[in-house]
Amino acid sequence: MRVSYDEMKAEFKRVFLKCGMPEDKAEICARIHTETSQDGVYSHGANRVAKFVDYIKQGFVDPVAVPTKEKEFGAVAVYNGNLGPGITNAFFCADKAIELAQKNGIGFVALNNTTHWMRGGTYGLYIAQKGYVAISWTNTESLMPPWGGTEVKLGNNPFVMAAPGKDAPLLLDMAMSQYSYGKLQVARLAGKKLPFAGGFDEKGNLTDDPLSIEKTMRMLPIGYWKGASFAFMLGVLAAGLSGGLDSCGVDVNGKGNCGGVSQAFIVIDPSKLTDASKMVETFEATIRHIKSSAKDSSGSAIAYPGEGRLNRNKENTQLGILVDDKIWSEIKAL
Amino acid sequence: MRVSYDEMKAEFKRVFLKCGMPEDKAEICARIHTETSQDGVYSHGANRVAKFVDYIKQGFVDPVAVPTKEKEFGAVAVYNGNLGPGITNAFFCADKAIELAQKNGIGFVALNNTTHWMRGGTYGLYIAQKGYVAISWTNTESLMPPWGGTEVKLGNNPFVMAAPGKDAPLLLDMAMSQYSYGKLQVARLAGKKLPFAGGFDEKGNLTDDPLSIEKTMRMLPIGYWKGASFAFMLGVLAAGLSGGLDSCGVDVNGKGNCGGVSQAFIVIDPSKLTDASKMVETFEATIRHIKSSAKDSSGSAIAYPGEGRLNRNKENTQLGILVDDKIWSEIKAL
Repeated sequence: MRVSYDEMKAEFKRVFLKCGMPEDKAEICARIHTETSQDGVYSHGANRVAKFVDYIKQGFVDPVAVPTKEKEFGAVAVYNGNLGPGITNAFFCADKAIELAQKNGIGFVALNNTTHWMRGGTYGLYIAQKGYVAISWTNTESLMPPWGGTEVKLGNNPFVMAAPGKDAPLLLDMAMSQYSYGKLQVARLAGKKLPFAGGFDEKGNLTDDPLSIEKTMRMLPIGYWKGASFAFMLGVLAAGLSGGLDSCGVDVNGKGNCGGVSQAFIVIDPSKLTDASKMVETFEATIRHIKSSAKDSSGSAIAYPGEGRLNRNKENTQLGILVDDKIWSEIKAL
Repeated sequence: MRVSYDEMKAEFKRVFLKCGMPEDKAEICARIHTETSQDGVYSHGANRVAKFVDYIKQGFVDPVAVPTKEKEFGAVAVYNGNLGPGITNAFFCADKAIELAQKNGIGFVALNNTTHWMRGGTYGLYIAQKGYVAISWTNTESLMPPWGGTEVKLGNNPFVMAAPGKDAPLLLDMAMSQYSYGKLQVARLAGKKLPFAGGFDEKGNLTDDPLSIEKTMRMLPIGYWKGASFAFMLGVLAAGLSGGLDSCGVDVNGKGNCGGVSQAFIVIDPSKLTDASKMVETFEATIRHIKSSAKDSSGSAIAYPGEGRLNRNKENTQLGILVDDKIWSEIKAL
């Protein structure tokens, strides 16, 4: 079904208020879960609302907590997220990194002891829409094996890069696993294979069969050994620089997905380095450049990072935001 | 054959001096090409020397040029590389970013109009060995198609992350293509297939046959669409933030591979955020964590990023640095 932005946001806010969130935080979280679905990232929008509420009820997320400063020096700062809502904690740190970038040209905030930030792209978009460049990442609980191993020991550690654009921000928002477990489930339920191999089967062969991968839990890192190494670096740097939990996968915490994770927020103020409008023109020239390529036979459009999001947003804005009937009923009943 | 470090470096230095490099630059470039081969990255060590000399002779690289400052504000700066040697330009900017990080906790230098920096990992190692964290990247000439396209329009834009470690720095140094053309050539000459699919054949199917990919030039980005998007972002941000050339692939310059490219150097001083020895212990705990996984049947070791480099370095230090007979003869004749 499709639900209007206002109706969806009001419903999410009602649910968040009911489970003890203060009004200001409930407003922000409701807006972000709505916008995330509006952008077509349903897994971290409407589909995640019930789980978030459950985490508050179980005490994994403290709905009233705010970040507290542990250190500040020049253009960098460290905050403790105090297991508050991942969304409001991440916005707090994005704002702080913007403030540091305004003063210094670049700012860096390391956040420890926070909770799931939902869609990482949220903060990239926010920073880019204010005219800044964002480089940001989080670690996660373990979701895939290290390269050469069979046991789940490595987070998929989403990485975000964003910059102001002409029509919309440029936005890269990618986890280090080729597919998410959500994607595997969707393909399996539809009786489909994955578009490309997404993990290893029980014999250790690459497979595009979602069920085989769900069984082995041997998710494929992007670029094989490369993505596994990138995930490792993102994981340890988020933890190491923030003084956060010491495991790449934050496995021992027992506070739900991503309970106690660490995050990194780098913000660059392009106006301190260059003419910001010239920068956007550079982006546009490269967009024209890639779009001038002959297309392959797949039929997929040649798009700049963030263009797919923009298109899904337009469709959901025009027609109402797509939501699974069952999920919508569950939220209404919360 | 194997050649001692001292002999190799002396030979490279002789060649660089002969083609007009000042003594100090020849010393640095000879050391770096030697160390790169010593670390087992032959493609950008000994194997690249003749091409670098050719670029100087053709005027693509100005052997005497040094970077000039275009802008500085707080913790950020922009330099013009003046088409000087990529290695000495990159070291200059790494040093400047370290200086900015010492003062501000983080520093960022954007470099335009430079030339091939050879192995990107060189600067990551350098920064990490001094106790800092590095995030750095370069754009390149076009080497692969955008996702959904068949024409080569996108750089493979190597990305580097490095941090101090216990035995050796943690080092991620990865291009956005799954394999390099050098790797395709090596596999083809050995009559071998690639370990995993590395591109598309003439029918548009994924293939592990190196020759098929050399023919179509449809190199596979790491993680399919994800690596293509990451390459795009790295390319435009290096160019956009430095005021450099406007193409992702720097195609129109006609000054050899990577002539006129842009680079980004972010340095973080961990001592301004946390206890640096605690940070390294966090890294070690995660290394133990991933190494505790059961191994898959491939026989490949579970390694932290940078461990392979360390092992190759040890072997080449002990036995002499491996170099192709023909390449060594060519260098001797230069």
